[in-house]
Amino acid sequence: MIGKLYLIPTTLGDTEPLEVMPISVKKVVEQLDYFIVENEKSARRFIKKIAPKKPQDSLKLMSLDKYAEEIETQAYLDECKNGISIGLLSEAGVPAVADPGATIVNLAHEKGIQVVPLVGPSSILMAMMSSGMNGQNFAFNGYLPIDKGERKKAIKDLEKLSSDKNQSQIFIETPYRNEKMFADLKAV
Amino acid sequence: MIGKLYLIPTTLGDTEPLEVMPISVKKVVEQLDYFIVENEKSARRFIKKIAPKKPQDSLKLMSLDKYAEEIETQAYLDECKNGISIGLLSEAGVPAVADPGATIVNLAHEKGIQVVPLVGPSSILMAMMSSGMNGQNFAFNGYLPIDKGERKKAIKDLEKLSSDKNQSQIFIETPYRNEKMFADLKAV
Repeated sequence: MIGKLYLIPTTLGDTEPLEVMPISVKKVVEQLDYFIVENEKSARRFIKKIAPKKPQDSLKLMSLDKYAEEIETQAYLDECKNGISIGLLSEAGVPAVADPGATIVNLAHEKGIQVVPLVGPSSILMAMMSSGMNGQNFAFNGYLPIDKGERKKAIKDLEKLSSDKNQSQIFIETPYRNEKMFADLKAV
Repeated sequence: MIGKLYLIPTTLGDTEPLEVMPISVKKVVEQLDYFIVENEKSARRFIKKIAPKKPQDSLKLMSLDKYAEEIETQAYLDECKNGISIGLLSEAGVPAVADPGATIVNLAHEKGIQVVPLVGPSSILMAMMSSGMNGQNFAFNGYLPIDKGERKKAIKDLEKLSSDKNQSQIFIETPYRNEKMFADLKAV
């Protein structure tokens, strides 16, 4: 039987994994040895936290960081044809949404490997739920540009989209730039 | 102390709740008596399934269906000022995203009531994760029009947006119209 690709959510900071994700995530992590990960150190920390009895030295980690060669990542799912299932883990939240992983998911589809998404926290979805804004039509725009002029233009464009289409506009910002972002939003 | 508004995810069909959502959802449901619900019957079924020991006759359900009068829903969070927390439940998935609830969340913000989103399955997020498409920029468009001409135009518009902005386009369709939708997608 051909192995599967499991999309595994991860936690941020000191959150207890099972407070924010179902027990099925623990069960899947316990069963897997092969993981494709965005960052090796934090992936090991998460695996240890959610599956403390799992022997760490049996783990086989493959790197998904931006320096991974495409030719190398093309081989990451090769073990699936030997019946081995593989987990995909990003740094925080769910893989392939505002995080790396889509190329691996695509590769799985090309190879006819079943992709199994697991449930976990996504800041984008939780922000949308909690906003009170239109959840019937919304867009996630990633990061806005850092350059002051480009950023103001981007904010104006999002505001126009929002009012023309009644489409909620979500974007992401690093904590240390939040205050500047709020100031720009107010100014525009 | 003022009560909170908990946004509670629900399951679809016969899924075992704790297979797809964290134990914290069960703990919250066990503590609450007041719920604002999209459908009373399925809300009772879900509450019974995730918190079987909870006495059903202590539940106070408020209806969020499309026939609820606005003047009535305006009073739904009044108990929060007496320190009572309230849960918001939609029919399947997470409240306020492709489901009713945003007006209640908005009301909570107006009244200074803390909104606490809980983690659970969202078909939109899981489809995005599993698609292999661009998860750095995507839009959820709700349902497309049913009228044949309008629908083809909507599909063309989404295709243009997708190629102009490299923005993945998500929409929702009822199962019994899926085949027709696939045919229209292929035709366009």
